[in-house]
Amino acid sequence: MSTPLHLTVVGSAALDTIETPHGRADDALGGSALYLGAAGSLFAPTHIVAVVGEDFPQQSVEFLAGRGVDLGGLTIAKGPTFRWHGRYHNDMNRRDTLALDLGVFAGFNPQLPTAAAEAGILMLANIDPTLQENVLRQMVKPRLVAYDTMNHWITGSRAAVQSLLRKVDLVLLNDEELALLTGGPATIENAGTLLEMGPRFAVVKKGEHGAILFCKSEPPFLCPAFPVRRPVDPTGAGDTFAGGMLGYLAATGDFGTFSLRRAVVYGTLAASFAVEAFGMNRLQEITLDDVEERFRQFQAMVEF
Amino acid sequence: MSTPLHLTVVGSAALDTIETPHGRADDALGGSALYLGAAGSLFAPTHIVAVVGEDFPQQSVEFLAGRGVDLGGLTIAKGPTFRWHGRYHNDMNRRDTLALDLGVFAGFNPQLPTAAAEAGILMLANIDPTLQENVLRQMVKPRLVAYDTMNHWITGSRAAVQSLLRKVDLVLLNDEELALLTGGPATIENAGTLLEMGPRFAVVKKGEHGAILFCKSEPPFLCPAFPVRRPVDPTGAGDTFAGGMLGYLAATGDFGTFSLRRAVVYGTLAASFAVEAFGMNRLQEITLDDVEERFRQFQAMVEF
Repeated sequence: MSTPLHLTVVGSAALDTIETPHGRADDALGGSALYLGAAGSLFAPTHIVAVVGEDFPQQSVEFLAGRGVDLGGLTIAKGPTFRWHGRYHNDMNRRDTLALDLGVFAGFNPQLPTAAAEAGILMLANIDPTLQENVLRQMVKPRLVAYDTMNHWITGSRAAVQSLLRKVDLVLLNDEELALLTGGPATIENAGTLLEMGPRFAVVKKGEHGAILFCKSEPPFLCPAFPVRRPVDPTGAGDTFAGGMLGYLAATGDFGTFSLRRAVVYGTLAASFAVEAFGMNRLQEITLDDVEERFRQFQAMVEF
Repeated sequence: MSTPLHLTVVGSAALDTIETPHGRADDALGGSALYLGAAGSLFAPTHIVAVVGEDFPQQSVEFLAGRGVDLGGLTIAKGPTFRWHGRYHNDMNRRDTLALDLGVFAGFNPQLPTAAAEAGILMLANIDPTLQENVLRQMVKPRLVAYDTMNHWITGSRAAVQSLLRKVDLVLLNDEELALLTGGPATIENAGTLLEMGPRFAVVKKGEHGAILFCKSEPPFLCPAFPVRRPVDPTGAGDTFAGGMLGYLAATGDFGTFSLRRAVVYGTLAASFAVEAFGMNRLQEITLDDVEERFRQFQAMVEF
């Protein structure tokens, strides 16, 4: 049993107002870095690098400290916290942004404390690729760098995105982002094209339809989603998936095919909890035992 | 090793003109009964019950006879064969019907030859529920009855559909049909409601996203789709899935959970071949060895 690696996550911290067909939550804990931290810390020591405003209710992240998360990289800046207000359509596959206020996130310039910079795994959540490059330079000797981005940067900062793709190990993205990056409609062929652009591994996230892991010179891994009885709020599911996946990889320190596949399953399960309640409410409640129990349920749903 | 059961399929036979982003096929072999027969006959002795017109190119189904399919129930009637002309959108998840001529299919009144009536497994493909009831009455002693329908009958002939649901064992349907039958949006809860309406088993087909098998008092089985490198034409994929699934069940004669799960995998693989070329072109080429080879590939894509 080797010592677990540490996981550093760099991204946003936000207060979300969320409307879904199942209700509404006001100023719910949100943002990619916090979802990543909430999921990753179920598995391994985690460092969060993000910025919040003076209005941020610090006690709302105390559950993270309780899990041993290092919040030394959570800066409190003058001004309001990043706020997002969104409303999901009836099928919850689409949503409209009703209001957006970047607040102090507009001036986010991530500085990694020593402990965060020395982590074995780095997750670059979706922020400006220039900042992502800066973060990468601050890392001492990461063994695995995971990367997320969005359409805005793929189309507006393509050269910066391509430069990052040559430096990272694992890319997490959806079908639409994959098509935009590689210029074709078919997931399987495009994934091959993406891996030629740099990364060793890619995970295509398909929400309620599961995920596919692509590795160079290996068959893909097809992972169905866990069937959630009553999904309430999909916000943060993708970041929670990444947090669960990378947390598991940090815990094992093993980046072989078998471990990567298991990591995708743990990401899937973490996300399945996240959507069961608004914001991070369900992620705050659960322990690793709950995830392991669901892992056994999942195994019983995929054997043949 | 028990003697395989026979499979009887009752549905349409058609000549399809199909346009997809990958090209066009004119008067391609189509119709639910022929797709079902092409897939089912890879596994087990199959009887086709359908009607075609005098214009139907009989030699186009000779490959079925070559696989031992009993075409004694394929009636040749005066008038034109059922013709459908459809055009798929760019993502191939939606299509528009450009022309439709029911021809002799409008007068279809299925009469089962003795051999077909004595089969152990019956597939009622999507036709008027009144005709489906008539077919069911002609069966001698089926061990498993599978059932497909569509929105048109669910909304227009609900009582007849509900009556059939109490008599059949296995229902194959998509998310939209499930929601229409049960009145709710969430697949997992709705599947439970559907099983309370009569059938022992239900398969929710999700196309490129796989399928889920529901059985009473058992965990669901989550089956990803096989990742086809270059899907060309999705026409008939659902019927091919059903043919592969029921053909496998006929070959084993085993309706236990393990066998049903494997059957869903074989249905998935049969459908993955169907979409690789227009109409039935690919299904005509392949043998059971090709399916078994893909089964091994699939296993290597889902293990964790």
